[in-house]
This record gives sequence, structure tokens and C-alpha cells, in this order.
Amino acid sequence: MRSIARGLGLGSAAMALTALTALAWPGTAGAAPTGTESLYAPSALVLGVTAGQDAGSGTVLRAVTLACSPTPGGTHPNPVAACAELRANGSRLDALAAPAADAVCTREWNPMTVTADGVWQGRRLNYTYTFANPCGFRNTTGVLFDF
Amino acid sequence: MRSIARGLGLGSAAMALTALTALAWPGTAGAAPTGTESLYAPSALVLGVTAGQDAGSGTVLRAVTLACSPTPGGTHPNPVAACAELRANGSRLDALAAPAADAVCTREWNPMTVTADGVWQGRRLNYTYTFANPCGFRNTTGVLFDF
Repeated sequence: MRSIARGLGLGSAAMALTALTALAWPGTAGAAPTGTESLYAPSALVLGVTAGQDAGSGTVLRAVTLACSPTPGGTHPNPVAACAELRANGSRLDALAAPAADAVCTREWNPMTVTADGVWQGRRLNYTYTFANPCGFRNTTGVLFDF
Repeated sequence: MRSIARGLGLGSAAMALTALTALAWPGTAGAAPTGTESLYAPSALVLGVTAGQDAGSGTVLRAVTLACSPTPGGTHPNPVAACAELRANGSRLDALAAPAADAVCTREWNPMTVTADGVWQGRRLNYTYTFANPCGFRNTTGVLFDF
């Protein structure tokens, strides 16, 4: 494989992709589903805001899309900054969702929940975070859930 | 509420929205999280193709976004047709994912899984369907998973 790739003048990125495809589709390296995989691991998310604490059955009030590869895009109001935060934090989203340390909020129980569903760097992602009340959401640390 | 809305010349849609907001945020009707809910229930999905039968830990080969309200969009190759299929089938996606009845496929076990994650008409949606082999995926009934 190595010598063939060199003979064709392919770079290490293409070789890595070939190896990845072969791993993902054992025995059918030349016959992946439709034949056009990207050089980039896919990253695309739907971010939602749900009334209440139950993201599974609650009413989703708003939702935006966020794609991060090959370039930031989607209906999120600030995809460039949101993708940068995701790259810096990986799938540890609590650090982005939780209210900022200096936020001043009341403490009544009027919960709302943010969700992130989709794919991050080639892995499926399902994330939820529940705020005690809307003040926490308005003071979320990152821009990821600021929409 | 009714007489005030009429006095302001608001239509029934705006009144319905006001009622919905009041339901969703009991006690804080005038202080929803950031104050700008849409007239449309949000519909935004990430559709993925995963190698193997385990959507949770498998490698996602490709992923696209699909938004259906207020207008079809996203990185899906045919968002208009995909949104029409979703509206016709609701969240019963098996009818769209399963191979067409007249598909001629071999039967070896080389599974691949499609996923749909996000929000459909205001409800969170997490869906997976596993094909026995790539032939089934290439002959999927609908256009939703044809990407």
C-alpha cells in the first residue's frame, strides 16, 4: 500500500484516508457505500432549546444547524466562534453550556434544556444540559448555545 | 388578552403564538429566554451514515444537515424533496429508509447504519436504521437518506 501510494504521488492525508476506509469497510475497501468520502471527518450538529427539563418529550422552542467541516456554516448566528469552541473543548460541552462563573442569577426552578445532536469529528453526539431557569441560559459561558 | 390583541390589530397567528409562549414559559410569558420565538415549529436534522451496526460508537463516514422550516435548506443534496418526504411520513422514518421493495440485493452481513438526529416539528428526534449491507443503502426507498 505504501509503495503504491508513493508511486501515484499521493500525500500522507490521502494515505490516511485510504487506511481509514479500509478499516471502516473490511473486505470492501473499493466498494464503500457511494464511493465519495470526504478528507475531513464530518462534524454537523443541531442545537436546540427546549422548555422544561425533559429534552426527549419537551417542546423545542428553537433549533439551529451548525456544520464545522470543511468550513463553519449553518443557521447558527456565529458558526466560526462556535466551531472554534467545539475544537477547543471536544465533546466536553458542559464547559460551554454551564452559566459563567460571574453570572448573577435568581434560583427559582423554571427549567430549560439545551441539546446538541448529530456528529462531531466522525462520532455521533447526543448532549443535553438543563438550566435551573432562563437566567442561566442567558449567561451561558460559550457562544455555542447563544442563539 | 383577546380584546387587547384585537385592539393592536394582531391576527390569530400572533395570538396563537402568544398563547403557546405562555404555555411554554408559565409565569414568565413576557420573559422567554431571548424573546424571539419563530412562528414555525423548528425542524432541523443531521443525517449520518455510519460503518457497522452501532451508531453510538461507529465511525460516521458522512453527515449532512437538513432544515425544513421556514424553508428547506442545508447541505443535503435535495432538501426540498427530503422535507416533503418528512412532512408526508412524520417521524415514521422506516418507510423512507428501508430498501425499496423491488431492490435486488445480495444478503451478506456487512452492516451500515443511517442516523437522523435533531428536531422535527418541535420534538427532539433520534433515529437509526441498519442495513444488512451497502446494497440496501444504495436502494433506500426515499431521497431522505440518499446523500
